[in-house]
Amino acid sequence: MADVLTSEQILEAAQDVLRRYGPAKATVVDVARALGVSHGSVYRHFPSKAALREAVTRRWLDRAHAPVTQAAKVPGPASTRLRHWLSTLFDAKRHKALDDPELFATYSVLVGETSGVVAEHVAHLVAEIAGILRDGIAAGEFAGTDVDLTARAVFDATGRFHDPAYSADWSGPGIDDAFEAVCTLVLNGLAAQESHVPQAGAEVVQPH
Amino acid sequence: MADVLTSEQILEAAQDVLRRYGPAKATVVDVARALGVSHGSVYRHFPSKAALREAVTRRWLDRAHAPVTQAAKVPGPASTRLRHWLSTLFDAKRHKALDDPELFATYSVLVGETSGVVAEHVAHLVAEIAGILRDGIAAGEFAGTDVDLTARAVFDATGRFHDPAYSADWSGPGIDDAFEAVCTLVLNGLAAQESHVPQAGAEVVQPH
Repeated sequence: MADVLTSEQILEAAQDVLRRYGPAKATVVDVARALGVSHGSVYRHFPSKAALREAVTRRWLDRAHAPVTQAAKVPGPASTRLRHWLSTLFDAKRHKALDDPELFATYSVLVGETSGVVAEHVAHLVAEIAGILRDGIAAGEFAGTDVDLTARAVFDATGRFHDPAYSADWSGPGIDDAFEAVCTLVLNGLAAQESHVPQAGAEVVQPH
Repeated sequence: MADVLTSEQILEAAQDVLRRYGPAKATVVDVARALGVSHGSVYRHFPSKAALREAVTRRWLDRAHAPVTQAAKVPGPASTRLRHWLSTLFDAKRHKALDDPELFATYSVLVGETSGVVAEHVAHLVAEIAGILRDGIAAGEFAGTDVDLTARAVFDATGRFHDPAYSADWSGPGIDDAFEAVCTLVLNGLAAQESHVPQAGAEVVQPH
């Protein structure tokens, strides 16, 4: 097996080892043993234990995220697409957390120690939101705004429904209503100024 | 001292002990020793170690929250009051976290183990938001809506700026801009429907 060893095989084995032994105990030697290769063979693909753990985490985040990227591509108005994107993200995270809580807990530890990987992942998600916002602004559906800042605000405002810190809430009663209420608030917020601005004389209460 | 021992004195001493020894090690005997009384004197006020820790946590949350309750009472339109309430909450939490990180870490542990106290505290905060929303709806400033659900949505949407899970972000660059962006999104979201609804023929994009 050693001469055809791929990075993908190593990452798959590393995930199994991390789940079985826990992130605190799993070593590169354990991964090599599981594959029946020397630890040198693993190090040829990943120069350090930290690099291997980062690669495992990146792969997990990318995979969890694949259906979300697809969700941005559905046809229809930007508000429909954004709502679909947000609910797909929530569903993907919720399934990960509830279907395999042990693996989810393992990755929660890894995510906590690989902040660079997570920052990259979040930037990628925020960029997808920004893409939908730009389409919505171009279509006159969303208000013109600082797109990158607003995209991050959408991500922040929906954090209870994608940040693993809240995973204990995701099976609770009322969570779907809570999600819908936040989505509605956010989508109204994106549209609001657009509907105000062109209507001279509309009653808008402003602090004076 | 024992014959004039008050609950308040015990709670003050318990906070000191928790900070000094850490939540994992602090005991009722430590608290009694710090006060120069028997542990029986402490138990006359608080029937168990858990009850004492809950009372300490409740006191801390209530105190952190006092300026926030005041913020709901400022004069002006509901949107100004809500923004002021949210920024006062963020400031209060941020000061707690940054001014005395050791005590904040201690309380983060306590908050994690006293879920009933925290749920009560959150319900109280959400009720204050709901009060501002009702005033705004009565004044025609905010859209009519399910007030309790929407108040919770406002609380959830601003979680990055009050949930201790995010305290590591609160000293980062850009956090104030991020806060303003979420506030603007939320306040636009509250006003949006009100401006749409009475205007027949206004262009509202809905999924069909």
